[in-house]
Amino acid sequence: MSWNTFGRVFRFTTWGESHGPAIGAVVDGCPPGIALTEDDIQPWLDRRKPGQSKFTTQRREPDAVRILSGVFEGQDGKQRTTGTPISLMIENVDQRSKDYSNVAQAYRPGHADYTYDAKYGFRDYRGGGRSSARETAMRVAAGAVARLVVPQVSILAYVAEIGGDRIDPAKFDADQIGQNPFWCPDADAATRWEKLVYDARKAGSSLGAVVECVATGVPAGWGAPLYAKLDSELAAAMMSINAVKGVEIGDGFDAARLSGEQNADPMRPSAGGDPPEFTANHAGGIAGGIATGQPVTCRVAFKPTSSILTPVDTITREGEATQISTKGRHDPCVGIRGVPVVEAMMACVLADQALLHRAQCG
Amino acid sequence: MSWNTFGRVFRFTTWGESHGPAIGAVVDGCPPGIALTEDDIQPWLDRRKPGQSKFTTQRREPDAVRILSGVFEGQDGKQRTTGTPISLMIENVDQRSKDYSNVAQAYRPGHADYTYDAKYGFRDYRGGGRSSARETAMRVAAGAVARLVVPQVSILAYVAEIGGDRIDPAKFDADQIGQNPFWCPDADAATRWEKLVYDARKAGSSLGAVVECVATGVPAGWGAPLYAKLDSELAAAMMSINAVKGVEIGDGFDAARLSGEQNADPMRPSAGGDPPEFTANHAGGIAGGIATGQPVTCRVAFKPTSSILTPVDTITREGEATQISTKGRHDPCVGIRGVPVVEAMMACVLADQALLHRAQCG
Amino acid sequence: MSWNTFGRVFRFTTWGESHGPAIGAVVDGCPPGIALTEDDIQPWLDRRKPGQSKFTTQRREPDAVRILSGVFEGQDGKQRTTGTPISLMIENVDQRSKDYSNVAQAYRPGHADYTYDAKYGFRDYRGGGRSSARETAMRVAAGAVARLVVPQVSILAYVAEIGGDRIDPAKFDADQIGQNPFWCPDADAATRWEKLVYDARKAGSSLGAVVECVATGVPAGWGAPLYAKLDSELAAAMMSINAVKGVEIGDGFDAARLSGEQNADPMRPSAGGDPPEFTANHAGGIAGGIATGQPVTCRVAFKPTSSILTPVDTITREGEATQISTKGRHDPCVGIRGVPVVEAMMACVLADQALLHRAQCG
Amino acid sequence: MSWNTFGRVFRFTTWGESHGPAIGAVVDGCPPGIALTEDDIQPWLDRRKPGQSKFTTQRREPDAVRILSGVFEGQDGKQRTTGTPISLMIENVDQRSKDYSNVAQAYRPGHADYTYDAKYGFRDYRGGGRSSARETAMRVAAGAVARLVVPQVSILAYVAEIGGDRIDPAKFDADQIGQNPFWCPDADAATRWEKLVYDARKAGSSLGAVVECVATGVPAGWGAPLYAKLDSELAAAMMSINAVKGVEIGDGFDAARLSGEQNADPMRPSAGGDPPEFTANHAGGIAGGIATGQPVTCRVAFKPTSSILTPVDTITREGEATQISTKGRHDPCVGIRGVPVVEAMMACVLADQALLHRAQCG
Repeated sequence: MSWNTFGRVFRFTTWGESHGPAIGAVVDGCPPGIALTEDDIQPWLDRRKPGQSKFTTQRREPDAVRILSGVFEGQDGKQRTTGTPISLMIENVDQRSKDYSNVAQAYRPGHADYTYDAKYGFRDYRGGGRSSARETAMRVAAGAVARLVVPQVSILAYVAEIGGDRIDPAKFDADQIGQNPFWCPDADAATRWEKLVYDARKAGSSLGAVVECVATGVPAGWGAPLYAKLDSELAAAMMSINAVKGVEIGDGFDAARLSGEQNADPMRPSAGGDPPEFTANHAGGIAGGIATGQPVTCRVAFKPTSSILTPVDTITREGEATQISTKGRHDPCVGIRGVPVVEAMMACVLADQALLHRAQCG
Repeated sequence: MSWNTFGRVFRFTTWGESHGPAIGAVVDGCPPGIALTEDDIQPWLDRRKPGQSKFTTQRREPDAVRILSGVFEGQDGKQRTTGTPISLMIENVDQRSKDYSNVAQAYRPGHADYTYDAKYGFRDYRGGGRSSARETAMRVAAGAVARLVVPQVSILAYVAEIGGDRIDPAKFDADQIGQNPFWCPDADAATRWEKLVYDARKAGSSLGAVVECVATGVPAGWGAPLYAKLDSELAAAMMSINAVKGVEIGDGFDAARLSGEQNADPMRPSAGGDPPEFTANHAGGIAGGIATGQPVTCRVAFKPTSSILTPVDTITREGEATQISTKGRHDPCVGIRGVPVVEAMMACVLADQALLHRAQCG
Repeated sequence: MSWNTFGRVFRFTTWGESHGPAIGAVVDGCPPGIALTEDDIQPWLDRRKPGQSKFTTQRREPDAVRILSGVFEGQDGKQRTTGTPISLMIENVDQRSKDYSNVAQAYRPGHADYTYDAKYGFRDYRGGGRSSARETAMRVAAGAVARLVVPQVSILAYVAEIGGDRIDPAKFDADQIGQNPFWCPDADAATRWEKLVYDARKAGSSLGAVVECVATGVPAGWGAPLYAKLDSELAAAMMSINAVKGVEIGDGFDAARLSGEQNADPMRPSAGGDPPEFTANHAGGIAGGIATGQPVTCRVAFKPTSSILTPVDTITREGEATQISTKGRHDPCVGIRGVPVVEAMMACVLADQALLHRAQCG
Repeated sequence: MSWNTFGRVFRFTTWGESHGPAIGAVVDGCPPGIALTEDDIQPWLDRRKPGQSKFTTQRREPDAVRILSGVFEGQDGKQRTTGTPISLMIENVDQRSKDYSNVAQAYRPGHADYTYDAKYGFRDYRGGGRSSARETAMRVAAGAVARLVVPQVSILAYVAEIGGDRIDPAKFDADQIGQNPFWCPDADAATRWEKLVYDARKAGSSLGAVVECVATGVPAGWGAPLYAKLDSELAAAMMSINAVKGVEIGDGFDAARLSGEQNADPMRPSAGGDPPEFTANHAGGIAGGIATGQPVTCRVAFKPTSSILTPVDTITREGEATQISTKGRHDPCVGIRGVPVVEAMMACVLADQALLHRAQCG
């Protein structure tokens, strides 16, 4: 696995910078014969694309994906994957010609500015360059392909918390998720967040968020112990997303506060025989790194973006003291647009594990 | 990277089951010329080994490691790494001949019993087989080698919380850590935990724990964006440890509750020039997946072990309803013995990133 | 390493089919700070591109490469690599709209038609699809980047034999190589080959060839035993090129006919001290999988292309007996255009080994 | 894939030096449920082990393999693979206490002495250390497991040529192969070789050899284009064996001397339908990197060992001119004992490709 590649058998490699001519991904290892056109990918990208509400960045990108390889029209007239690498590309359109001299000269704390310079001695500072969340569009595109590899699985993510304000589990309504600009399953919380995020944006401030993701239909047996455990792969996948600082599987840190009795996930025979029925799911559907057949659940913590209006102490490339603040368009709560990315990474991990399982266990 | 291998350049592969003749690891990619004998590894294993206090399992294993390859005595009489694979082995001694028929026939909920059967159709049920925490001894051994690869780094882990009872940061005293059976840096908390864990053990119950780990001396620049980000690798490493259900870098989930202003890590020129001084470390020493030069910090949640005296509903291999309880020796709080394992995985990630960085950036 | 990716640290992934909209490569792991523009890549592509003489295919492709990511203009005004993935793309221009129904329905023996169908159940048959030698353009592009990673190394390949007619080593003149359409270092042989290849082309027949490649300036020490030995990597690299059926390092099969005395590569102190002087190089500059500091040499056998005018027995997709012949434009001797590809793969292997060596040995 | 690991899904990692306490391999990715005991491995090791005739080294090693993990006795009483890593170990017994000071101080030309020092600055010189052919015993052990993964495949290797003296294809008799100490299928050639090898041994000289290997029963479709092509993997596998300098698939270099007509492998419908019948196999059973269903054939060139009695010019570690000769036990023709190693590598490549194929194509 190289640095810009994710996955073992179903794998994708992304390339591109925020303000380069384009961004792209190469998906390798995809099984052949899967019906695939741009129409299977575009809707997922549309969910993520910027400029859709006043609560996200005002950058305007159509994010129109092109499939450049790996598909062919079969005798039935349907375009299908051929088993060869699928090249996906999105041209960057709205690279607003702006003056980047302040970012070029001073490091924005909390961003990758200082560290890229420390590592490479050199960086593309325009819009964050390679470290921009713009790259996540390609994860969403790869994830759209991954979903087709594991059609038996349904993946649903939503925002469970913004700025410390949580949804009420009792008010959870999956149908609400697509009805508000926050991917929020609790209508009341969505109303509260409207003000919360609006105020933050107006103040040039930012808010953190927690995204939850549930995958149902994952068969018992997927997962590859010990160092490709399903939970280990999920943790790596989620933590590789921009601004993510924490990952939990199932009850996560709460499990550390339970007793063994409280944390038990008892089993009993199911009506249909196999798989058994579990009467709890503290473990998030994974035991010993392998799926139990229950819903696979994880929680992902997004920090507030470091792009804020309030000036923050920093240094210039030459090491002089200065301050920096971010005026332009940005997401006041990057976790919101993280929802489709979290789903995509879940899909990619599961597609990979499905093929890994098939490789070893037939 | 295969299933039982961790790392990209500095990598180790573990093998072995709880009740097989031995367990082992092969460390590949280690630089040559590093002084290494069993004495460099054994002390770390001794920290982890079972049977050291009444608060951990009573299995008695000397855990004496042997180096079977990859070292040679140089002209100076010192045994050093040769750059070839280092084979490490520990013989299993205390495989108490016990009746495993109940575990063979019924699945212990929360353990990997059901999932290994679901995946492989077959499992070594003695003591958990491959899914036993016994395997972590080899991570500690590999970690001991990794430490020698990055001698500039100091790694310290400790238990920060057991059963929901946290240490008081104001009472943090690193010297305390080795003075109590809990790797606890707060003497008062250690006293409280003594009763807490003792009671749990007596009741045949179990407790979760949170382990914190800090690595100092990590130079700015280590880390390999985007899919081998330092935090992503750490998350995968920690989540691959038995019983771990959550990982945080820096403030983790707490960061999701902060505003951008509160979460900022401002920089200023340091007295000595480079690296700059940071006046906060919410990010846990990592920005954009690359080390900032600050301490790298993470938190790891261990669930309570599922081995408890209280009978739990489960099913037999044939799918019949039954109950199971665990009577034998076990750890009432597996997080405690997780401390040296967390340190070892931190060391392995950093050694790997150090070599990756050298590969690309010289 | 995935199926369409080559390399371990310096690695490239190619994508694209002969008749798709474009072909491309993503180069990952390239060190930062290397001056790189399209002008550093295009000349190598121009050496390989089709339609340059009557001895190669008449397909007309400008093969103009674009760099889509991974470079940035530094403060000195020079565009340099940033350490992030370098995306390279060439649009397919001359996808002549031709009738592929015969190829769609019947398998061309010797081509990948039958095997792709057997593997994937489905294939892009236009011009060979993914199995077309067109993909090798991207290897040449990646190789151009690789050369810049190891500027101390000089790589030279040439055709040593066509249709069994060998060059005379006594007439070897490196300056001749670029002066004839065969990359032939022996002017007399080039003259003979002119007739040989012309006749084959006119008859709709084809010829095999042997390409030799020499890399000088490879420092002693590069190479990674045991399964990433320099010779093992070279063998894999060369054998992955279309139409290649044999690889030799140094004397290759001839070494199997020598005695140990004849095959010895004696060493003696060099005037300059280190490295020593070798008085022979039967081993092709590699011992134990590691470079000796001598020129690294290999020989690569290209079969005659299976695209010939003479009808050959084959079967249809439905399994019926039929015959097939190739009328269109094609290379009468694919080994000729293999020369820049062999050089490129040598460059990629050496760049990778250079970084691998630095990773482990500093 | 790390340096001492071979394979992608079915993979093995070897460790150990010629004169260390033991050598070993860890086989990872093996499917579960395969019956496996030491008795399935030992016979293959016995074929390779030294000291069996006067034509191979007189080192006496019982080479008794132990399985330390990855198997478990099922309910049917049969020991089977569990899907976890299989650790294999052989103790080194005959590490004759000999004076290695000459080898420690001077480099044996043709061996890895100089290059290991150039790379690592340090080496275990006893018996060649890690570069010793002793490591190939573990390949044979891993290969024995691989055979069980692809039971539909039969693999046969033999020596086709020693010191330039070839077998007569007309006299090929597979039954002869096990009847002489040369794995020679031509009884007359075996008789000639007896004198040839005996003379070489007596003179302290050495001879090269060519080994051929044929795998039948490989289904059409195995192979993973483009950089894990079946022929590319085979080339890497074979070239990683000690003393190998050339690899051919099918007709190899001879194909480079044929016309397209001569080299054609025509197809026709077979009596049984699928797969078709091929009326020739110049391609060695591989087209486009994918198996055609015909026998997969390769040829491997072994150089004469560099351990000869005649003194050869060399230098000391300090760079002084000297001479060195090899007096002790050694193989006069290392290609002979290469036969089981070539078979093992073929088995490992095919097992890996079988699982890769299943991963992507179900």
